[in-house]
Amino acid sequence: MITAGIDVGSVSTKVVLLMDDEIQYLVRPTGWSPRDAGLNTYKELLAAAGCKDSEVQCKVGTGYGRISLGFIDKAVTEIHCHARGAGYLAGRGGLVIDIGGQDSKAIVINDCGKVLDFAMNDKCAAGTGRFLQVIAAALGVDVSELGELARGRQPLEINSMCTVFAESEVISLLAKGEDKRDIIAGIHRSVARRVWGMASRFAPAGKVIFTGGVAKNRDVRERLALESGSEVIAPELGQLAGALGAALYARELAAKK
Amino acid sequence: MITAGIDVGSVSTKVVLLMDDEIQYLVRPTGWSPRDAGLNTYKELLAAAGCKDSEVQCKVGTGYGRISLGFIDKAVTEIHCHARGAGYLAGRGGLVIDIGGQDSKAIVINDCGKVLDFAMNDKCAAGTGRFLQVIAAALGVDVSELGELARGRQPLEINSMCTVFAESEVISLLAKGEDKRDIIAGIHRSVARRVWGMASRFAPAGKVIFTGGVAKNRDVRERLALESGSEVIAPELGQLAGALGAALYARELAAKK
Ligand code: SF4
Repeated sequence: MITAGIDVGSVSTKVVLLMDDEIQYLVRPTGWSPRDAGLNTYKELLAAAGCKDSEVQCKVGTGYGRISLGFIDKAVTEIHCHARGAGYLAGRGGLVIDIGGQDSKAIVINDCGKVLDFAMNDKCAAGTGRFLQVIAAALGVDVSELGELARGRQPLEINSMCTVFAESEVISLLAKGEDKRDIIAGIHRSVARRVWGMASRFAPAGKVIFTGGVAKNRDVRERLALESGSEVIAPELGQLAGALGAALYARELAAKK
Repeated sequence: MITAGIDVGSVSTKVVLLMDDEIQYLVRPTGWSPRDAGLNTYKELLAAAGCKDSEVQCKVGTGYGRISLGFIDKAVTEIHCHARGAGYLAGRGGLVIDIGGQDSKAIVINDCGKVLDFAMNDKCAAGTGRFLQVIAAALGVDVSELGELARGRQPLEINSMCTVFAESEVISLLAKGEDKRDIIAGIHRSVARRVWGMASRFAPAGKVIFTGGVAKNRDVRERLALESGSEVIAPELGQLAGALGAALYARELAAKK
C-alpha cells in the first residue's frame, strides 16, 4: 500500500511517501505559495520514487498550508500529525517537543502516538525557529551554522525573551566585543528556557522526543537537555514527523475504505 | 525655587527645569551612555536657561537610566514620576496611558497625581514605540511620518500581535500592492488594541490622558479613542510627563528640607 503525507509548514514543505514500511521523502522551501509548494513537492517526490499519483491510495495534508491543498483526501491538524509521526519515529510515547519555523509545541503522546495533552505557541516569535533566524541575520551567519558555532561555548546571559529586544541585546554584546559563539550559546539557552517554560508543566517521566527544523541544531538539543534535566532524543527524520504522521493517517484511512 | 527632573528613557532623555511654575525643558537622544545623556542634557539645559547647578535646589532622576545618574539627589520609579507629571499636565486624575520607546503603561491616578493602580508591559515589543520603529523601517518611512500618513485611511487587518510576525505580514501586504497608508493605519489600530487590552481592566470613567513619545502620533491617538470608546487627550508636553513628575518630586523634597 502506498500513501502520502504532505506537511506545508511556514518555512518548508515536507512530503512523505509511505510504501509499506519504506519512507521516501522530500523537503522544499514553501516560498510564497503554499498551494504550489505542496503540489510541486508531491509531484517531484512521485517522479523520484518512480510512482504514479493513481497508485497512491490516500493523501493527507497537514501544516498551516493544508487548507490550500486541493488534491488531498483529508486535512489533519499539525498537533495530531506531529504526535503520530514523532511516536512512530521514536518507537514510544512520551513528551514531544517540536520547534518549527514559526511555532513551538509540547505534546504528550501515548505509545500509539495519540495526543493526551498539548501546549502550543504560535503567537510569539520567541522560542521558535524565527527567533534564531532573526538573531543569525543580526550576527551575519547562516541559521544552519548556529549549532556548530555554539557547541561547548559558555552561554552569555540574554535578558530579554522578546525577539526584538534580544536582537538589540545581541547587537550591544557584539559592540562590546563579546565572542559571537558565546552569544549564540546564550541565544540557544534562551530558546531552550522559553520552550521548556511551556513544556515543563507536563513534567515528563522519561526522555524528551525533540522534532521540527530546530531539532537539527545540536547545541539547542544539548541546552534543552540541561534545562529539562531529561535525556533529549532527536530522531534522524524528526523534521518529517508531521508529514510522516499524515502519511500514517492516510494509511489508516485507506485501510478503512 | 528651582528644581530639576531628569528622565533617561531607552530612546530619549528628557530634562525639565521647574522654576516656580515656569517649565523649561530639553529632549535629546539617549544613545549608548545613559549616564552621559543624563548629565549632558541637564548641563545643556542649565546653560540655555542661564542658570547654575548650585541654584537648583533638588534634582530627581527617573526612567530606565536613572540608576546610572551620579549627580541626582534621588531616583524615583517611572510609574510614580509619569503619574505625577501626567496629572499635573492634565490638571486632573484618571487613566494615564503612556507609550514609550520600549514599554507601555496604564496608570490610574487621583487628582493629586498619586498612583492608585497600574499595569505595565516592558517584556514584549508589541504595543510600544519599538513596534512602530520596526514597521516604519520595513516600510521605508520615518517613524515621525507615520501619524500623518495614516490619518483618515482605512486600516488593513494585521493578524499578528507579535512585532516579528506583523513585520512579515506588512511585507506581504506591500508585495500584494496594498497602500502603505492603509497598512500603517492597520498597524496603528493594532497598537491601540494591544495597549487597550492592557488598560481596559481599569475601565475609566472619563477621559484618557495619553503620554509618551507615541502620543505625538495623532493617528494612534484617534485609534485609541475608537478602541477605548473614551475621549483621549494628549497634553502638549506629554512626552515630558516623567521628567516633569521628577521635577515636581524634587520640589516637594526641597520644600521638606
Ligand atoms: S515578546 Fe517579542 S517576539 Fe514575542 S510576541 Fe512580543 S514582540 Fe513578538
